[in-house]
Amino acid sequence: MEHSIDLSKYQIRTDLAIESIKDIKDISEEVVEDNIKVTKVLVDDKISKIINKKNGNYITIEFDDVTDITNYNKVKKVFIKELNNLLNKLKIAKKDSCLIIGLGNSKSTPDSLGPLTINNIIVTNHLFELDELSDKYRRVSVLVPGVMGQTGLETSDVISSIVNKFKPNFIIVIDALASQSIERVNKTIQITDTGIHPGSGIGNSRKEISYETLNIPCIAIGVPTVVDAITIVSDTINYMHKHYTYSKLNINNPSHKLMVTQPNYLKEKIELNKKDKETLLGIVGTLEENEIKQLLFEVLTPIGYNMMVTPKEVDFLIEKLSNLIGNGINETLHNI
Amino acid sequence: MEHSIDLSKYQIRTDLAIESIKDIKDISEEVVEDNIKVTKVLVDDKISKIINKKNGNYITIEFDDVTDITNYNKVKKVFIKELNNLLNKLKIAKKDSCLIIGLGNSKSTPDSLGPLTINNIIVTNHLFELDELSDKYRRVSVLVPGVMGQTGLETSDVISSIVNKFKPNFIIVIDALASQSIERVNKTIQITDTGIHPGSGIGNSRKEISYETLNIPCIAIGVPTVVDAITIVSDTINYMHKHYTYSKLNINNPSHKLMVTQPNYLKEKIELNKKDKETLLGIVGTLEENEIKQLLFEVLTPIGYNMMVTPKEVDFLIEKLSNLIGNGINETLHNI
Amino acid sequence: MEHSIDLSKYQIRTDLAIESIKDIKDISEEVVEDNIKVTKVLVDDKISKIINKKNGNYITIEFDDVTDITNYNKVKKVFIKELNNLLNKLKIAKKDSCLIIGLGNSKSTPDSLGPLTINNIIVTNHLFELDELSDKYRRVSVLVPGVMGQTGLETSDVISSIVNKFKPNFIIVIDALASQSIERVNKTIQITDTGIHPGSGIGNSRKEISYETLNIPCIAIGVPTVVDAITIVSDTINYMHKHYTYSKLNINNPSHKLMVTQPNYLKEKIELNKKDKETLLGIVGTLEENEIKQLLFEVLTPIGYNMMVTPKEVDFLIEKLSNLIGNGINETLHNI
Amino acid sequence: MEHSIDLSKYQIRTDLAIESIKDIKDISEEVVEDNIKVTKVLVDDKISKIINKKNGNYITIEFDDVTDITNYNKVKKVFIKELNNLLNKLKIAKKDSCLIIGLGNSKSTPDSLGPLTINNIIVTNHLFELDELSDKYRRVSVLVPGVMGQTGLETSDVISSIVNKFKPNFIIVIDALASQSIERVNKTIQITDTGIHPGSGIGNSRKEISYETLNIPCIAIGVPTVVDAITIVSDTINYMHKHYTYSKLNINNPSHKLMVTQPNYLKEKIELNKKDKETLLGIVGTLEENEIKQLLFEVLTPIGYNMMVTPKEVDFLIEKLSNLIGNGINETLHNI
Repeated sequence: MEHSIDLSKYQIRTDLAIESIKDIKDISEEVVEDNIKVTKVLVDDKISKIINKKNGNYITIEFDDVTDITNYNKVKKVFIKELNNLLNKLKIAKKDSCLIIGLGNSKSTPDSLGPLTINNIIVTNHLFELDELSDKYRRVSVLVPGVMGQTGLETSDVISSIVNKFKPNFIIVIDALASQSIERVNKTIQITDTGIHPGSGIGNSRKEISYETLNIPCIAIGVPTVVDAITIVSDTINYMHKHYTYSKLNINNPSHKLMVTQPNYLKEKIELNKKDKETLLGIVGTLEENEIKQLLFEVLTPIGYNMMVTPKEVDFLIEKLSNLIGNGINETLHNI
Repeated sequence: MEHSIDLSKYQIRTDLAIESIKDIKDISEEVVEDNIKVTKVLVDDKISKIINKKNGNYITIEFDDVTDITNYNKVKKVFIKELNNLLNKLKIAKKDSCLIIGLGNSKSTPDSLGPLTINNIIVTNHLFELDELSDKYRRVSVLVPGVMGQTGLETSDVISSIVNKFKPNFIIVIDALASQSIERVNKTIQITDTGIHPGSGIGNSRKEISYETLNIPCIAIGVPTVVDAITIVSDTINYMHKHYTYSKLNINNPSHKLMVTQPNYLKEKIELNKKDKETLLGIVGTLEENEIKQLLFEVLTPIGYNMMVTPKEVDFLIEKLSNLIGNGINETLHNI
Repeated sequence: MEHSIDLSKYQIRTDLAIESIKDIKDISEEVVEDNIKVTKVLVDDKISKIINKKNGNYITIEFDDVTDITNYNKVKKVFIKELNNLLNKLKIAKKDSCLIIGLGNSKSTPDSLGPLTINNIIVTNHLFELDELSDKYRRVSVLVPGVMGQTGLETSDVISSIVNKFKPNFIIVIDALASQSIERVNKTIQITDTGIHPGSGIGNSRKEISYETLNIPCIAIGVPTVVDAITIVSDTINYMHKHYTYSKLNINNPSHKLMVTQPNYLKEKIELNKKDKETLLGIVGTLEENEIKQLLFEVLTPIGYNMMVTPKEVDFLIEKLSNLIGNGINETLHNI
Repeated sequence: MEHSIDLSKYQIRTDLAIESIKDIKDISEEVVEDNIKVTKVLVDDKISKIINKKNGNYITIEFDDVTDITNYNKVKKVFIKELNNLLNKLKIAKKDSCLIIGLGNSKSTPDSLGPLTINNIIVTNHLFELDELSDKYRRVSVLVPGVMGQTGLETSDVISSIVNKFKPNFIIVIDALASQSIERVNKTIQITDTGIHPGSGIGNSRKEISYETLNIPCIAIGVPTVVDAITIVSDTINYMHKHYTYSKLNINNPSHKLMVTQPNYLKEKIELNKKDKETLLGIVGTLEENEIKQLLFEVLTPIGYNMMVTPKEVDFLIEKLSNLIGNGINETLHNI
């Protein structure tokens, strides 16, 4: 039902698999190291039906902060390792040529991750004709197709015509994603071999950028940079519930009365119950998450609802992330 | 109480007077022409105490859309007329020199209104030494002081030192504002002769840019470009209330059952009652707006809450608005 | 011989026909109006052999200054008229769809004319699916293919694959040109129906963008934005000759002795003779222009010669010119 | 005499000391290491009179290429060492506060070195109030005053009013310079403790930014990013002379006849004689360098001469250089 919310309006074309699998147990493998969490899922036919995601590998890297140089380097190291693993799994050879595609709108900050990443890529394809390169490099070319609202051209058709003409051995697509949760914004990198599926879910293959449509491996790298305004309201309703229950439990806890800083309801496991939510939030408290989102969509549409929610320092964060991904790709594809 | 929410975190330093006076009757004069609404208030000692705003003139221009060229021109015309009126009221003479100051962070889109406007200003001050100008022009110079997070310098001190050195006859300050309502974002221009008061309300005169601190008229022009994430949640709770009441009233209305498009609860006057809100929203429904905002602030703080809400096309809108204000100022200050 | 100077090094791919025909009499039609000179040539088989330019129409608009708003509007009017004429001559119908291509490197100011012009184009192609447009508009889409040094992809192959996929009825290509004369830089617009011929002259059809390669009309619009450093030296040698002869002639002219400002050798017709040039410039004075350029190329190559000459205010001029061309194309293609 | 050529027209305010001292023996100390040449001069009263430069230390770092990462790091290391030496010589203490000023026009590529460098500076001054910093940092603030053509304000007055208000212990000024030689453009960094002297030479103290006017140490860091068009013509005339003499000497040298690549007249010591120059260049060959420049100025003025010469890849080079200088300053001023 949530898919009736048209996230594509602000040009964000894809989304985060980890959010679909969060409630399904035992299908993903998780490793945490140095505060960086890597979650890997192989979506097979069975899971695909449940979560409405395409079959394939999904690797999700979650981290805290890339503005700190130490943490930036740690995340980059993990990113390179995971991208390398995926290339090996896909049997991509050392000398296979790569076209890297930066999706999105360079003139809208949260959607500019793709084009900005391309600025950091070491491009070599044209130099091979000249024999000017040592064999540390492979053939790499890049494409920034723009968005249909600016070019008038269907982006997936631009990509397929370029791929058919230049015949790279594989492609990497970089894109900004929409998240269903404000906690993940600019703090997650998703790597997948399933390509890009504008709109949502599987089935709409017309505009798909994938192995099925292009006949070469299609790796997609995405970062959630924005949440829908509906998401922030819906998230907040959940937080209110947790906060309320937490406060009720601790209202007579003398240790809290002495606390200088606010107690943090997020840090503790709280048993939530439905009754509390109803008391706190009335009818709204009785609705399921999807029902709330549908309600919010109905409520906000008449006011010409067209808002997005981003971190205040989004310009700076997107710059850091595109730098990390660009340099990470360089170190993975070339022997430098 | 709402002022405990630190809007200054994202560098937006001021706010919209019209939001403080909306519940006070008979103090403002309103004219609507061509879908553009102009509201004027003269805040005197008495009103100042009630709304916690500085004494002075506040002119608010509200409009729908500046991306349409016809509407853009209409809004510009009204803006020029009102700015001219204020100059006359302040007895600013035809040849008085003006320093125009673009506040804000040129590297954060919603906060870049000031610096972008300055790009459109016709600067003449240095040409007067050369006698190169016809007498259609007055002396105009500009300053983009940056924000303290980037320069390390207190912005108001930068401004006062430049004013003291160059001694303009008056200044115009352009700044992005924070709004308490998503409906006003990028659809309102405020002109005032009270200057700029970082932080909020009156009383904190240390960083004030005003007649009182600089001894020359200080006109401030502002556009709300952003709302706090708390605002969108709080607004949505109100919309839910209206929507709920509206739906209840019309649930058996046969005409609605035949409607193809969604009925619009905003277009009709609805009598809201407290009981409905409580049924819909439980305890939350019993809270006053300020109490809800305080609750939201408490709820969101532990999750490292640092979000802002902007229209999806904010980059494009800020460009248009800075163009309108810049050219409007040019036509007002010079005889062109 | 001058073509051994590789202007393509700085990504400027084409050049100005008017410079090839300047010494051939009676082949062009010239009109001057309001200080704007329009020169039209139809290059046929015979002329093509002489000037090494492709058969077709070449329209050259020469003007003084586009930073002045009055002059800007005059030039735009002439540009629209001439572009319209050419569309009619090519029998392009009111509803024929157009792909507009901005060649060049958006990150090198003098080469950014193409990409910057695209920013000003009204794009409509994607809106036709939605029936959202009045019939004042035709289908327009845009492409910014980048330069091979940045993308790794041969630009003409990018263009041909997009044209083959989207099948526009005609294309317009915008590009920065190299000029052989500093007097023309940023003061000339060339419109032609011969397309783009990277490298130089005719014959190298591999990378050509033209009716012959794409099978649709290919209009090219170019502005010289740069001259090679060799050109400025060679031009200056000619100016020295004129200046010397002029000074010699006027050395005893009493009226000159009273002049406050410098006499202007350019404003008068002077009979130049070879002997003078030799006296002034020795062996160099005996060389033909092409021989001087060849000599300069030899002299400058060892010092890692890689210089270009631009007006000091090139950033500002390119912005104005791309705005003029973009808006001129909009008014020609759409009924607005 | 060359100073009648108004380089200040394109906003470049200062110039390179090394070009004035090149003909004076034994006053400078030169070290070459790793292809990086460092020249140090202490201009005292006597030398000052000869070269028309202000008394003080001038350190010039000459290098080949900063687009190569290895070389970039070498140059940065030398830059940090020399800047540190100068701070020590000026007895600037570990905790002394610094205001860093980026001169120039951010909208004209070759003049944007100052503003771009500021973007890379770690600013700390405002954080000291909050006790948020470890003692690895000193107080650093920044200022980008713009150019008078854009602000209408005399730049030196903007700087002095900010210095007087904020009272830093010393300032560092970064500026793009004009060079008299194309070989030095973007390949030289000059560090000096004499400040900035707009216009030229000493004596014009009105707009000076220096210890004498501000009473604190004023370090200036400059890179030549542009040469005047007159310079390139004049340089080329000299190169023609060398090339001619070299060719004459080697015309019958059989080894040259077998050479595939062009012989390089620059790599060998050639005895130049006046007679050759006259034969080659006639009257022009008899003129001194300053006389030639004066002649060129006269010749080019009537054609509305307003050209500059830059490397073709100037946008990219300025980005690298501002990055090097910004990070070099960070590592020198802070303990990071």
